[in-house]
Amino acid sequence: MNSEEDIRHREDADPTESMVEIEVQHPADAAETIEGLDIVEQVKFIKQLPIRDAAESIAEMDEYDQVELFKNLNRGLGARIVEQMSPDDATALLKGLDEELRLALLSRVPAEDRAELKTLLTFDPDTAGGVMNTEVVILDQELNVDQAIAKIRDEVEDKEIPYYAYLTDQKDRLVGVVSLRDILLARRGAVLKDLVKTQSLITAGYNMDKEEVAHLIARYNLLAVPVVDFGDRLLGVVTVDDVIDIIHEEASEDMQAMVGAGPDETTDSPWLYSVRMRLPWLIINVLFSSVSAWVVHLFEGNIAEMAVLAVLMPLVANQAGNTGQQALAVMIRQMAMERFDRKRAWLAVLRELRIGFLNGTIISVLVFAVAYAITGKADLASVLGLALGVDMLLGAVAGASIPLILKEMGRDPAQASSIFLTTITDSMGFFILLGLAGIFLLA
Amino acid sequence: MNSEEDIRHREDADPTESMVEIEVQHPADAAETIEGLDIVEQVKFIKQLPIRDAAESIAEMDEYDQVELFKNLNRGLGARIVEQMSPDDATALLKGLDEELRLALLSRVPAEDRAELKTLLTFDPDTAGGVMNTEVVILDQELNVDQAIAKIRDEVEDKEIPYYAYLTDQKDRLVGVVSLRDILLARRGAVLKDLVKTQSLITAGYNMDKEEVAHLIARYNLLAVPVVDFGDRLLGVVTVDDVIDIIHEEASEDMQAMVGAGPDETTDSPWLYSVRMRLPWLIINVLFSSVSAWVVHLFEGNIAEMAVLAVLMPLVANQAGNTGQQALAVMIRQMAMERFDRKRAWLAVLRELRIGFLNGTIISVLVFAVAYAITGKADLASVLGLALGVDMLLGAVAGASIPLILKEMGRDPAQASSIFLTTITDSMGFFILLGLAGIFLLA
Repeated sequence: MNSEEDIRHREDADPTESMVEIEVQHPADAAETIEGLDIVEQVKFIKQLPIRDAAESIAEMDEYDQVELFKNLNRGLGARIVEQMSPDDATALLKGLDEELRLALLSRVPAEDRAELKTLLTFDPDTAGGVMNTEVVILDQELNVDQAIAKIRDEVEDKEIPYYAYLTDQKDRLVGVVSLRDILLARRGAVLKDLVKTQSLITAGYNMDKEEVAHLIARYNLLAVPVVDFGDRLLGVVTVDDVIDIIHEEASEDMQAMVGAGPDETTDSPWLYSVRMRLPWLIINVLFSSVSAWVVHLFEGNIAEMAVLAVLMPLVANQAGNTGQQALAVMIRQMAMERFDRKRAWLAVLRELRIGFLNGTIISVLVFAVAYAITGKADLASVLGLALGVDMLLGAVAGASIPLILKEMGRDPAQASSIFLTTITDSMGFFILLGLAGIFLLA
Repeated sequence: MNSEEDIRHREDADPTESMVEIEVQHPADAAETIEGLDIVEQVKFIKQLPIRDAAESIAEMDEYDQVELFKNLNRGLGARIVEQMSPDDATALLKGLDEELRLALLSRVPAEDRAELKTLLTFDPDTAGGVMNTEVVILDQELNVDQAIAKIRDEVEDKEIPYYAYLTDQKDRLVGVVSLRDILLARRGAVLKDLVKTQSLITAGYNMDKEEVAHLIARYNLLAVPVVDFGDRLLGVVTVDDVIDIIHEEASEDMQAMVGAGPDETTDSPWLYSVRMRLPWLIINVLFSSVSAWVVHLFEGNIAEMAVLAVLMPLVANQAGNTGQQALAVMIRQMAMERFDRKRAWLAVLRELRIGFLNGTIISVLVFAVAYAITGKADLASVLGLALGVDMLLGAVAGASIPLILKEMGRDPAQASSIFLTTITDSMGFFILLGLAGIFLLA
């Protein structure tokens, strides 16, 4: 909480001012407080909160902490909290629980909510349907502004919402969207359908990948995007605050998957979970490293004859690995931020090839010069410089291509990409260095 | 544009439906079209657009493309476009231009806009003041709802906005915020100050780091946060769409800085720019790698005697490097997503130590077993297993600590962290492996 002082809550407001100040903790702050308690205290804390506050605070907790808390809460209270949560938060929570507890809680919420939650639970959590909120204001497009305001007023009690209201036709199909601002500023008596913007309506199919939905909202600066089924009927909305979470998650997934850590790991995950997520990739990495070791093994005779080669090996491998990781990082971020365009993507590989060639040449010449100055051996310095330059170029091309190749194979472009990369730069680096040495230094 | 088909624009809507469909390209799409043209065509395209559309489209372009375009646009047209842009977009654009062009454009915009832009240009671009939008609806807290609506109607023509209106007292100090929804749903005649929420008002000082502002908006699910000066006077707002861009930029910066690529590089940056950004770190990396090479050099005699050690070196170094990068990735993402808390951060290092210890032990035992099975040499297999386990543990602790140490030193926690890490895992790995070999295998 280092920067607490930067966040200027107005607790220091002049008491003679008219603004009423009550000490109400924001749900996000309450969630942090709760997470800092042990489980017994957590349960006690939740019990003394009004149900609505408890629901809002729990919605802001990390998934792992939510699950632990619900395991320890009595089911009647748990069900009442679930009932109070917004349907998307409740669904996310229920998905994290084991089946027995989930069904027990569901059986205790009122039938109508239960039906809705059961429907929401059927959507893939990585799609628009899996993250959407079903609390939507739907208005008949023939209503006038005053009727619309009256309808919104009626519904607002149990809906958190909304910046937008959605217009449907007689067949319940989504035909337009109006913002509250449009309604507020319209002349009295105006009919809703006449307020609809002429720009084409942007919607997400319920099975659109949630990262695609995030791209849509980011690209078009939207506050929410409506989610529709195949018949264009409105199912819910994905809002911009959910999108921020999706973007954060996505960035963590990419960075962590790249090196074989669990995509959803945080420093709050149980440490054994992290061990479980990382160990398989470490085993794969050790197997892949064996390839590099095997390459060195092929040239063991050369090394026995000329041990200085072993001194140069890490220089070449590490440098080419770093060069490749620079290309890898830029490519993965680009793929995270923009819609994938195959042609542009391969042009980006070409770009990395140029960068790798120039950087490789410069470093290669520098290292040649320094090695020659130190050892006085032009042939040794040449072999080192050449191996370094070529391996750096290879690293750049590999780093840029690996995420594209993974994508073309239908896999996550980031997953283990750094592991694949260093396998290539290590083994090829050793092969080139020791091979060239065999030809030019030991002949 | 692979997934274009997922984005369900309603061009296929039944023409008998009442919704009017005009082919209007969204600014974000227009920006992409423009970026795909060569510079001569770009200028031609911009010239035939209505000024307002041109301004909106250009605001959505990448900074590099914006700058290139303005260099080639005549200054009269450039100034009219700047005038039409929202102040935050105009400021971002002007900051990218060289001084001569910036002043030339500024001299051509009307005096009032010029004064505002000049003020905005004085803010650090990485702070709340540097990214804020000054188009804010400010209302006197004593107004009633109907007066407020009338005032908003008056202002709405030239302000893009707004989900929130901000209330000030007689001294122009910010005292509260009301959403349009609050206004829309209030009973007629209600006074604004009575609509203000009782939760404390969240504001950002103008010099708050923009990433902190993004955290505030993300944490409290806000659509905008007001930016104030030291006297609590309202200067502008940072809106959620800007925050999405900040979060994206931040994720790219972290991932790219980690390996020494330029924090703001994209696949669209000129390739020579990337060379210039990466080369210094590659030079540093080669210097650091020399440390590892020097460690190997110390043990050259051991390697000459026992070349198999060179075979095992990459195995140890690569594996420990990967282990450390897993810890590094999780730590950097955590620091990106949550406010920094020193105690929790160092507890996270402890957590990584445990993970590294368990993973290191498991891999170490596995590798020992395999090496023993292949070579039949228990002493060699032991040395390898031990070096691997210890170096993995070191890697985990180093990977977790490096971003914290950088932060404590007042530096970017991500910057070159991966380079520092592999220097440690390489050099320590070689030292342990070759040192143990010297003691137990060559004695």
